[in-house]
Amino acid sequence: MSHIEATGSYLPSTVVLNSEFVGGNALFESMDEYFSGYEERRHASATETALMMAVEAAKDALANSKYTALDIDLIIGIIQPSRNVYGDDLNLMQHELGAWNASVLPINTACSSFITALNTADALISTGKNKVVLIVTSTDWVHTMLDTTKPNFAFAGDGAGAVILDGSTESFIDKYELNNTKPEVFNALVMKNAQFTQQKEFFTVRPPEGRTTVKDLILFPMSVAKTLLDRNPQVAVDKVIMHQSGLKMMQVWADKLEIAEDKIRHTIGLYANMTVANIPVTLDYWRKKGDLQRGEKILFMAPSAGGYSIAMLWQY
Amino acid sequence: MSHIEATGSYLPSTVVLNSEFVGGNALFESMDEYFSGYEERRHASATETALMMAVEAAKDALANSKYTALDIDLIIGIIQPSRNVYGDDLNLMQHELGAWNASVLPINTACSSFITALNTADALISTGKNKVVLIVTSTDWVHTMLDTTKPNFAFAGDGAGAVILDGSTESFIDKYELNNTKPEVFNALVMKNAQFTQQKEFFTVRPPEGRTTVKDLILFPMSVAKTLLDRNPQVAVDKVIMHQSGLKMMQVWADKLEIAEDKIRHTIGLYANMTVANIPVTLDYWRKKGDLQRGEKILFMAPSAGGYSIAMLWQY
Repeated sequence: MSHIEATGSYLPSTVVLNSEFVGGNALFESMDEYFSGYEERRHASATETALMMAVEAAKDALANSKYTALDIDLIIGIIQPSRNVYGDDLNLMQHELGAWNASVLPINTACSSFITALNTADALISTGKNKVVLIVTSTDWVHTMLDTTKPNFAFAGDGAGAVILDGSTESFIDKYELNNTKPEVFNALVMKNAQFTQQKEFFTVRPPEGRTTVKDLILFPMSVAKTLLDRNPQVAVDKVIMHQSGLKMMQVWADKLEIAEDKIRHTIGLYANMTVANIPVTLDYWRKKGDLQRGEKILFMAPSAGGYSIAMLWQY
Repeated sequence: MSHIEATGSYLPSTVVLNSEFVGGNALFESMDEYFSGYEERRHASATETALMMAVEAAKDALANSKYTALDIDLIIGIIQPSRNVYGDDLNLMQHELGAWNASVLPINTACSSFITALNTADALISTGKNKVVLIVTSTDWVHTMLDTTKPNFAFAGDGAGAVILDGSTESFIDKYELNNTKPEVFNALVMKNAQFTQQKEFFTVRPPEGRTTVKDLILFPMSVAKTLLDRNPQVAVDKVIMHQSGLKMMQVWADKLEIAEDKIRHTIGLYANMTVANIPVTLDYWRKKGDLQRGEKILFMAPSAGGYSIAMLWQY
């Protein structure tokens, strides 16, 4: 059993308004309608690396918790992108935090990474392998992975979120996860490894090849969540926190899942799409607003590059 | 509880003899004495990518098991390096294997990845989150991450290993893991992300800065294993499978742990250092030789780039 003891976040101070951009969301072309809701977002400065933001989010979570860095026995999550690939920047967090009793596990399920980390950490705590786990997901993808010379990144923001998990009470209810790695789905959302191209690579969203791919990209994640809800009819969902790639997409998902729109919690108007950091930043934002109550049942759901989707029911 | 149901491996067909190299192991300089035991190794051809080898190792493991690809509900491990970084090549294995019921979790604890994956998968199975897990670790690092124009890679081979894990019996005994991310340790073994340098990057082993760093690199992993053994005095170790970066290093570790040298199982003379693939390839090699018996207690141990070390006691 495990429990979210505390949350934290770090958002860059530079605010960029959507109206400063021209050209719209060329990146998404025929799927444009789903990608809406952006008003402003934060862009990292040169010193606000994904690692630095991860460290600050973790410090915020620690400050909100009953633990010190020395209590942490595992740091799990993703620094996206890591400046080092072998070791990973996430390893450096042990030193940055003074978490001298921690081991470090970098994972990468792209936009799903936070939920995957939560599921994995829950298993590690439930089996007694770990006691106090820091989950952190952080990205400065705007300047590092996106082609900012083109009018295609109005949807993207930088940021970092963190959670401290311990074993004090049971919060995990159920999860369902599945991959959908048809080549056309994999190749619709992908970034190549610059090690092989020797040039800066950009994350690309290719126009879907017909209705099938649109369904794969938009409806597959929803069907994963539906499977989860259908096998847990006793659970009344209080709040939904989804991967926020577009407001319309979240509304479509909620509608098809027969969840009232006013249960959706997001930060898309403020922070846009922070990929790996969306969910913990949103969780922290609404907790600090006093909106999240202990005992409430949250549906987390996210699709990701790589064709992986996960949905989880969690009692906060 | 979990159990290794089957193992598999794939080794490239190209055999390279150590005697074909001149110049020795310049990479390691003052630590040269620890890096010994290489006789031959396998180098991947252009078509033997880390993904292709991972798929073949997984097919071998499946053929040796009672399961089909459709029984797998999680694929966890590392394709090193992945040609795609967001999604990861590991996701493509679902399609390559026809593992349509599987989700995919890429992890990266460098040379420790197999043991980390085994520990994580054990937790996921023990909590009922997964039933049949494919662990796969594969690398074609010789041509992709090492500077083959210099006489510094006599130690390196390519290969892939796989394991099928299920929940039929209890095999996990205990593990201990810890990071050691002093900057000088992190920077002693590292490869930068080509996304930021726009050139092919090489994995580098920097000369250790004095005795402290040598101790950190060589003795820290041993001390992690010693902590594990000391708290499990009732466990009589039958076999030891270590990360094989050097024969002398394995002998030093065994000696300091008071484990007889004849309990070490390795494949360093045949396959050299395959980083992430060392341990499952060695496990599969000795199983196929009829050397591993059910019920034997194995000590797994590995240090890795990133300063992370893990040791695990496992009843085969």
